[in-house]
Amino acid sequence: MTTTTLNDPRAHEQAAGCRIPDPLRLDELHGSLSDPVLGSMTLLNEIAGRYPDAVSFAAGRPYEQFYDPGQLHAHLERFTRYLEDDLGRTPAQVRTALFQYGHTKGLLTELLVQNLAVDEGITADPDAIVVTTGCQEAMILLLRALRTDDRDVILAPAPTYVGFLGAARLMDMPVRPVREGTGGIDVDDLVDQVRAARAAGLRPRACYVVPDFANPSGLSMSLDDRERLLEAAAAEGILVIEDNPYSLFNAGAQRLPTLKSLDRHRSVVYVGSFAKTAFPGARVGYVVADQPVDGVPAGEGPLLADQLAKLKSMLTLNTSTISQAVIGGKLLENAGSMAAATRRESEVYARNLRAVLDGLRRHFPQPGAQVSWNIPGGGMFAVLSLPFETDDATLAYSADRFGVLWTPMRHFYAGAGGTHQIRLSFSVLTPEQIDLGLSRLAALVHDRTTKR
Amino acid sequence: MTTTTLNDPRAHEQAAGCRIPDPLRLDELHGSLSDPVLGSMTLLNEIAGRYPDAVSFAAGRPYEQFYDPGQLHAHLERFTRYLEDDLGRTPAQVRTALFQYGHTKGLLTELLVQNLAVDEGITADPDAIVVTTGCQEAMILLLRALRTDDRDVILAPAPTYVGFLGAARLMDMPVRPVREGTGGIDVDDLVDQVRAARAAGLRPRACYVVPDFANPSGLSMSLDDRERLLEAAAAEGILVIEDNPYSLFNAGAQRLPTLKSLDRHRSVVYVGSFAKTAFPGARVGYVVADQPVDGVPAGEGPLLADQLAKLKSMLTLNTSTISQAVIGGKLLENAGSMAAATRRESEVYARNLRAVLDGLRRHFPQPGAQVSWNIPGGGMFAVLSLPFETDDATLAYSADRFGVLWTPMRHFYAGAGGTHQIRLSFSVLTPEQIDLGLSRLAALVHDRTTKR
Repeated sequence: MTTTTLNDPRAHEQAAGCRIPDPLRLDELHGSLSDPVLGSMTLLNEIAGRYPDAVSFAAGRPYEQFYDPGQLHAHLERFTRYLEDDLGRTPAQVRTALFQYGHTKGLLTELLVQNLAVDEGITADPDAIVVTTGCQEAMILLLRALRTDDRDVILAPAPTYVGFLGAARLMDMPVRPVREGTGGIDVDDLVDQVRAARAAGLRPRACYVVPDFANPSGLSMSLDDRERLLEAAAAEGILVIEDNPYSLFNAGAQRLPTLKSLDRHRSVVYVGSFAKTAFPGARVGYVVADQPVDGVPAGEGPLLADQLAKLKSMLTLNTSTISQAVIGGKLLENAGSMAAATRRESEVYARNLRAVLDGLRRHFPQPGAQVSWNIPGGGMFAVLSLPFETDDATLAYSADRFGVLWTPMRHFYAGAGGTHQIRLSFSVLTPEQIDLGLSRLAALVHDRTTKR
Repeated sequence: MTTTTLNDPRAHEQAAGCRIPDPLRLDELHGSLSDPVLGSMTLLNEIAGRYPDAVSFAAGRPYEQFYDPGQLHAHLERFTRYLEDDLGRTPAQVRTALFQYGHTKGLLTELLVQNLAVDEGITADPDAIVVTTGCQEAMILLLRALRTDDRDVILAPAPTYVGFLGAARLMDMPVRPVREGTGGIDVDDLVDQVRAARAAGLRPRACYVVPDFANPSGLSMSLDDRERLLEAAAAEGILVIEDNPYSLFNAGAQRLPTLKSLDRHRSVVYVGSFAKTAFPGARVGYVVADQPVDGVPAGEGPLLADQLAKLKSMLTLNTSTISQAVIGGKLLENAGSMAAATRRESEVYARNLRAVLDGLRRHFPQPGAQVSWNIPGGGMFAVLSLPFETDDATLAYSADRFGVLWTPMRHFYAGAGGTHQIRLSFSVLTPEQIDLGLSRLAALVHDRTTKR
């Protein structure tokens, strides 16, 4: 071994025979690990477990009463038959598809083309699709691809899905907030923010939006705003990242077209999820990225999807073949329509949305400056504004004293915001639990406002 | 919408009614996408498909003749019974475990404690384990955690597994090469490189090693070198990332202890894979990270594993529950021993290693300065040194003219190296294919050396 030298800061300990390395320090690990946004996800994941008897409006999880482990075997069988009968694979090829390293872009691209046509009116090229380890990996791939150097930034309405904020933090991509109105993102403010960023020497790359029943706001964009957003994105030369986990849960209202189905300039990168339409544990999502990329070497595919697949080959290699087979089987059993597959869940969410809105009217009979809420047209979330700070300490007080959990809206802001708002998630509850939970919430509000 | 201003570079097109955004350019995407290392993975993944009739020594895939789709159902059933009978979960809890968002650290931590004890002599704390989307995600999490700013670098022997080089590139972590001798990493050179990096103002964080039958070199570290590596890592205050996908395939030789089982100072972060011991498609791996982290807020776990789980909650949320159930079922069917589960595969790899070494002696009867190879004690890989450049063009020539594929060793170097070497991977072949492939390789060598 090389001789220890005096200018080595560890030389003294080593010479003294001390062999115990210093412990790691949090501030010597990646900055995201000290960022509140990562702590938020941990809090949101764990708080329900700490208060098992509370009514929880906190969990952003799908309804699970219709799940049945037997379905997993049926889905797997169905997908295996598809490989054999529809695609004409030999038994050895089926075995390879299910067990070996798979194509980076995945086994489901053809089935997704059908699904996107049937459910969303999107005409997709299978080469433009990459199956991902949940929608989360799709966001990570996009954020990694679009981050070249310190000038690159991304825009997103405030509030925004905490998983997107966390993904951006992991990929060192700053998120610049855009104002949100009662119809989702404010397109005028988006244009202002893009230009302000450019004027500051930055390079705005894309804007992230959930146009239908957004998490956490519950808001949806009007058709007019969708068209205006696409015009603005094309004019400003930025991409739109459309995240669409909730659009099927429209509570009986007319569905509006996805941004991707309206996209005439390939401005929209569409990220899709099976977490709410099939089940979250599978971790199957996908991205449609049909944007051409100039300057790629010969032999590489010409689309952004091909570049995302290259990144994926170093991130997770391929999406679990077993998960893909299970989700593929579910798609096949429903002729490619997750709308058909989720009719029962849709009814549950619509019923629960009515229960929340009816209950809020009953338990807060005099809304106004003190207490107000929005009226989502579907989805899993509503937002309640309250006349006191709704921070984590208030949440703990609410859980301890009143047995009701909710999510402080401040966790969905990259900067300041949402200090007096809470998100009510109603996807896993019964109408009776919703009523009980709202009565407890009313008691909390009474307690806090009386004390003030 | 805000009025278009003249200092907006897109104002002119916009005013002219032109709404077609500029295409993306490769040089405006993350630098990893222009790095040869990512192209390497694509090449390695796709070349076999382009030459279906060639004998391929290129694929680093496990043997697949023992796979059977029926096993998937059996594994899933076995894991479901374990949740019910061994862990006493109710049917509703089993449903939640299989279908919902899962614990970030995974469902298999207790089974992995058993597996690590049985197969590797490692005593692991379940809280120190994070189940990952393949070993690849474990490497990504570690590289992300250890990259604080531009000073952080990581060390790895040259050559190194291309998936590690790619993961480092994705996470913007420079890899500084360490010399490799006939027994794997050169520990003296590691110390020199750590000190040289420090002297250059850098912060070396860890050294990545595959101590047993490394990919691509096939080399293994002696027990003495393992002890010396641990001493050096502790003395220099760096972590050791031990990647252990091949150690069970020891071709009948005595197994040496893993670094982690010898680790007295918590210097070793151990990353494990089920890709070679169960099957790759599942994408299940794990990391054991029992290092304490100073300075974490109250409520967070005290170990590096807890910080890695925080990162994972924003990268893939959780590892596919279905994949975990299948791998868990396989572990349960084998009383936690993947050594027991892979007896037949071990025999195949040992037989094929003999066939390669015997065949090389027959087809290259006068080794020496012209042609030489190493003698691995197990695993799936051997390295052949040749008297001509072994680049991608030579590979294409070999495939076209001689019907034999191999991997240019240069793909496993972050910098220059391996220009006259090739990796022979023999895991998926029969002895007859190996003999045919080596005779074709001998013909290529004759062709190239005669032309010279």
